[in-house]
Amino acid sequence: MQNDGTGTGGLDGLRAAIDRCDEDLVAVLRRRMDLSARVAAAKAGTGRPVRDPAREAAVVERVRALAGPDCAAPAESLVSTLMRVSRERQYDILIGRGEEDFRAAAGLPARADGTLSGVRSVSFAGDAGSWSALAARTLFPGARPVAAPSFAAACDLVSEGRADAAALPLANTTGGPVDTVYRLLESGLRVVRSVDLEVRHCLAGVPGAGRAGVRTVASHPQALAQCSRAIRAAGWSEVPAENTAFAAAEAARRGDPSFAAICSPEAAREHGLAVLAADVCDTGVNATRFVAVSRDLVVTPDASRLGLLLRLPDRPGALAAALDLFVDRSLNLSSICSRPVPERPWEYAFAIDVDAPALDPAALAAVCQLSRELPFLRVLGWYGTGPAV
Amino acid sequence: MQNDGTGTGGLDGLRAAIDRCDEDLVAVLRRRMDLSARVAAAKAGTGRPVRDPAREAAVVERVRALAGPDCAAPAESLVSTLMRVSRERQYDILIGRGEEDFRAAAGLPARADGTLSGVRSVSFAGDAGSWSALAARTLFPGARPVAAPSFAAACDLVSEGRADAAALPLANTTGGPVDTVYRLLESGLRVVRSVDLEVRHCLAGVPGAGRAGVRTVASHPQALAQCSRAIRAAGWSEVPAENTAFAAAEAARRGDPSFAAICSPEAAREHGLAVLAADVCDTGVNATRFVAVSRDLVVTPDASRLGLLLRLPDRPGALAAALDLFVDRSLNLSSICSRPVPERPWEYAFAIDVDAPALDPAALAAVCQLSRELPFLRVLGWYGTGPAV
Repeated sequence: MQNDGTGTGGLDGLRAAIDRCDEDLVAVLRRRMDLSARVAAAKAGTGRPVRDPAREAAVVERVRALAGPDCAAPAESLVSTLMRVSRERQYDILIGRGEEDFRAAAGLPARADGTLSGVRSVSFAGDAGSWSALAARTLFPGARPVAAPSFAAACDLVSEGRADAAALPLANTTGGPVDTVYRLLESGLRVVRSVDLEVRHCLAGVPGAGRAGVRTVASHPQALAQCSRAIRAAGWSEVPAENTAFAAAEAARRGDPSFAAICSPEAAREHGLAVLAADVCDTGVNATRFVAVSRDLVVTPDASRLGLLLRLPDRPGALAAALDLFVDRSLNLSSICSRPVPERPWEYAFAIDVDAPALDPAALAAVCQLSRELPFLRVLGWYGTGPAV
Repeated sequence: MQNDGTGTGGLDGLRAAIDRCDEDLVAVLRRRMDLSARVAAAKAGTGRPVRDPAREAAVVERVRALAGPDCAAPAESLVSTLMRVSRERQYDILIGRGEEDFRAAAGLPARADGTLSGVRSVSFAGDAGSWSALAARTLFPGARPVAAPSFAAACDLVSEGRADAAALPLANTTGGPVDTVYRLLESGLRVVRSVDLEVRHCLAGVPGAGRAGVRTVASHPQALAQCSRAIRAAGWSEVPAENTAFAAAEAARRGDPSFAAICSPEAAREHGLAVLAADVCDTGVNATRFVAVSRDLVVTPDASRLGLLLRLPDRPGALAAALDLFVDRSLNLSSICSRPVPERPWEYAFAIDVDAPALDPAALAAVCQLSRELPFLRVLGWYGTGPAV
């Protein structure tokens, strides 16, 4: 009886044959990596870039033709991976010879010995009851808090040297990225610290008001989004506010028992409001990631997250190719967020967070390669999490 | 003199050797693809999944050991690609045999012969002067417009059968994704049409007011973001509103020449306001992508975009691996947007748009594989762009 590959025995036999394919694949790879090292040596000192798009396109065409119509697509995928790991090898060699130095080019320090002890004032949006104020106090317990009317104004204080840092909400576990803050990060400030705060919004109204009598709730759009289930269940109308604390101030000013704010318990207390419901968030977990930004890059010894902003070439597969560079070097991305590119409709930039200890050589090598192969890359920061030490 | 690989001659010699590596790579691939077909035949009818994570992990470990410390990382990348294209081949075979049918499982029709001629009423947020109202008229010129106080309320009208479709802004070229609308899409409605509208916001105030006298501007936060340069240059305070048209209504109600709205020229006219500045957008291009959503999937013959919502396994490289499936099949992603996952802090779901004609077999195969290999995947819609025909 012919073994047609059915049944477990058949599958085992096929796997043995696959193992032999893998062995041959490794042999090809080892030869190719030796050649890559010699290519790097040939290019060293000549200024020739590692990536040669015309040569790569010719290789892909040749390999597709060799593979035949039935295997052209997988052959392209496989040789593209081979060329990518070959380029990685070449960058490693050039970095080792000092011919590529992304760290210096990006303005990163030679040693991760930065300190935030010079941060004496921290700006934030809202008043003393805002979540940003709590984040500012948490990030820099000893610094002087400086209130500002908006996220943009808080950043301006830093740009103009009137505050050493600003505390800004970057993303929320329910509402997602805070769009305006990402936009501000694109303007040139650097992230120097981050902290995740558990955010439990309360419903706050004038003393004597009751939850049942509330018709309208005011808050920041993100906070309204984080409490959307309670809002829809109760049928409350929404009034957007610049800040949760400002919503509390507005509720106090109106003195109308049907008008409540969604804000922190601190903001309620600050504005003399009563807490009508202690927690009106949609989910059991509602946390906001706050960042501290300053004018300059500061890499402290405990830095663990590398924030990047990058723009991709206008080519199918460009995002996957960029992400594969991190996978190849076993680097984990903890966050990726697409951003529109002004003046280029429907093109995207990406804000990416990489888990990497301060000045990690693998992360530096990946970013070095990306900076050479992408049209735009900027280090937003390489920073630690938790209160500044 | 020994040829040490330097100079153009040396590089040419190295490239000839690389070409021979590529030939050997193709030979390995062809053998491996034959084996993949036999594995698919062995698995057919047994219910055994194409992907076997334990087997793949064992292969990676073996290959890393074979490659040695110097080549373990590139060997893992290369064999991972080989296993991925092998799985793709197996899915193709199982789909061809009718053993995998993602189309039917996802509720997609067998033929792209859907029609939107039954859409007689379209809800939108704001009043007749809002950008959403303009989008509703553009998408469904003959349908009855139904105004709603918010995006959520416009969707509720559709869910409750009181409107056939809703027109919603999904993303803007300056401001990025409209967070609340993405959240609404996650609730179960399907996208059936899309149109990009050029959006030129004007500054509108009470008759007799002048631009120089304006101190405060009201608008939707996205519109405020799209005009942030003009706002900051003039030093105007911002007042967020639920809708640009509601901001115009508020400016008319207040009758205060220092209080202006940022809205459409239609909204200004609608509310008896004067246009104080014709275009206050930051960039020369400011377009908003609107979508029409309905209760059911409708695939019209001119469908060209497949919208997906997917969640990744909690594994480094998971996003790159998912995107590579599209690259392997030459499918272009026109948009990718990360979304938070409720109750799972700092995990991400992704909304992805794939350029693909209605029921394109390559796109169906990629999505079939993703639906088997990811913890969650949903088709948001497969739809055409421009006015419904």
